[in-house]
Amino acid sequence: MTGKATASAAANIAFIKYWGIRDEERILPVNPSISMTLSACQSRCTVELLAQSAESEVLLLDQDGGLVPAPERFAAGVFAQVRRLSERIGESAPMRVAAHNNFPTGAGLASSAAGFSALTVATLGAFGHDADPTELSVMARMSGSGSAARSVFGGYVEWPAGPHDSAGHAVQLAPPEYWALCNVIAIVDPSPKSVSSREGHRAAPSSPYYERRQEELPGRLEIVRKAIAARDLELLGPVIEKDAVELHLVAMSSEPPIFYWQAGTLAVLEAARRLRAAGTSVYCTIDAGPNVHLICAPRDENKVATELESLEHVLYVIRDRVGGAPTLEAEHLF
Amino acid sequence: MTGKATASAAANIAFIKYWGIRDEERILPVNPSISMTLSACQSRCTVELLAQSAESEVLLLDQDGGLVPAPERFAAGVFAQVRRLSERIGESAPMRVAAHNNFPTGAGLASSAAGFSALTVATLGAFGHDADPTELSVMARMSGSGSAARSVFGGYVEWPAGPHDSAGHAVQLAPPEYWALCNVIAIVDPSPKSVSSREGHRAAPSSPYYERRQEELPGRLEIVRKAIAARDLELLGPVIEKDAVELHLVAMSSEPPIFYWQAGTLAVLEAARRLRAAGTSVYCTIDAGPNVHLICAPRDENKVATELESLEHVLYVIRDRVGGAPTLEAEHLF
Repeated sequence: MTGKATASAAANIAFIKYWGIRDEERILPVNPSISMTLSACQSRCTVELLAQSAESEVLLLDQDGGLVPAPERFAAGVFAQVRRLSERIGESAPMRVAAHNNFPTGAGLASSAAGFSALTVATLGAFGHDADPTELSVMARMSGSGSAARSVFGGYVEWPAGPHDSAGHAVQLAPPEYWALCNVIAIVDPSPKSVSSREGHRAAPSSPYYERRQEELPGRLEIVRKAIAARDLELLGPVIEKDAVELHLVAMSSEPPIFYWQAGTLAVLEAARRLRAAGTSVYCTIDAGPNVHLICAPRDENKVATELESLEHVLYVIRDRVGGAPTLEAEHLF
Repeated sequence: MTGKATASAAANIAFIKYWGIRDEERILPVNPSISMTLSACQSRCTVELLAQSAESEVLLLDQDGGLVPAPERFAAGVFAQVRRLSERIGESAPMRVAAHNNFPTGAGLASSAAGFSALTVATLGAFGHDADPTELSVMARMSGSGSAARSVFGGYVEWPAGPHDSAGHAVQLAPPEYWALCNVIAIVDPSPKSVSSREGHRAAPSSPYYERRQEELPGRLEIVRKAIAARDLELLGPVIEKDAVELHLVAMSSEPPIFYWQAGTLAVLEAARRLRAAGTSVYCTIDAGPNVHLICAPRDENKVATELESLEHVLYVIRDRVGGAPTLEAEHLF
């Protein structure tokens, strides 16, 4: 038993997003999703097993690099996932967990996907338990952040849907080195969103347009798979932007309506259309939050980032790229 | 024959909007619409018949109150409508036409509805031709701005749909004095929109969500009729805001997508939700443009206007109210 392990895992950006949950108990999605795992937006997590008499605790890295107790709700989510992992591997112990995201949390940047991937890998590492990526994906999914099932793979990843076991884990479509795509993230509001993704999933079927989007998805998923296989941004871009907008159309027409979009969201969408009109190949996608992800080739990254930085509504820009699977690290958070 | 007449007609704000055209030749809408005729946003139009040897001309009032030749496209629209009116009443003459809107033109404020209503009434006035409101509505509709069919009535107005003659003109549901509603208009961009309503109507069926909205409409229209009859803002408001958002969802998911919304649009929608959360009964609607109409009771008009004026995105506010039918005026534009 190792006793202490630290893992690093990246967020991912979905090209076709899961929106609507089929089975909230088992965390099975209504529709398949395809994402690109990132590299700059990272969650780190250290897990240390304690003596059986000790009390478990969850800490967060604060701005000065010190460790502070995590808010109760955050800690409860961590302990719930640790319990599921313990049951699955048949080992348990009190533990000290420390976590840190180097990017905004709860703002539609898949921080829970990154965080639960890192927690899962670090916990197994602390118990000295080996797991292959498929098994890791199953375990990360169980956290309740379904998209965590994708973040345990690097590169381009699909999470199938359905009531069957195939929906229980994601699969890699292509490794990161297969296609060097950039994700320039325009941060218009880094604060945690007021409506969680979980609530959004629950409300989705109340939109009159929910089923129609589901009908559109098989064709869109097929285009995204082909575009990744062919490394074809012109094929990928229009369909991911269209589908992202329509996910928000479903949210805004849910009962009650959910507006993740803010003024800045529209300003960035408009900037992307301007960039395209001027010949730059760049396409937007938006997770459940106000911030906008602009997908482009490395040669256009600077131009896109500079344009976004010039917008009044954009607080700052994160330059991210396709990245690899979670890793165990030598340096711990405590 | 009078020879010269000036008419004033107001814009209207649709509670349930027409989006999609059934018969572009005859200007018959796919769905019924219900609107409130306004009072502050006015078009004025003077028509003077000239000697048969004279040449027709169309003039616009400029910012200094002088008359300048209208842009060719504008003049062509006026002449086309004058031709239709001449054919229908069996009289024709060269004419000088002058027009003026006291509010932004082509920015999603129904300027064409007001303008073509005023032109129709002034032209008939100049020919000394009497027409009842139903006949005026038929003639205004023929302009191509279908919603002009509603602006010839004051108060609360429905324009039915269908291939039959009943769709040829609007009908008054209630006169203006029946219910004193306010429309506080947040101007976030007064410039003419880049995609015309006509193009929007044409693109509408290409949205995967177009038909689903059509299915929702009969129930919504019935609620709006009931709400007007009962003067019930709490019944009216949620359904008009929902339907306005969904019209734009159809536009944004059309092929190609049409974004009338701008950053300021979202900022105003958010402000309305804030006002409601604080107990003020105010609901938004948005025509084909970025500007937002906030419907409220007279007692809340000041509060709503003040809140909107405090927003960085709002350039200025127009305080409008329910108003009457077009009128012939003694004072001419020239």
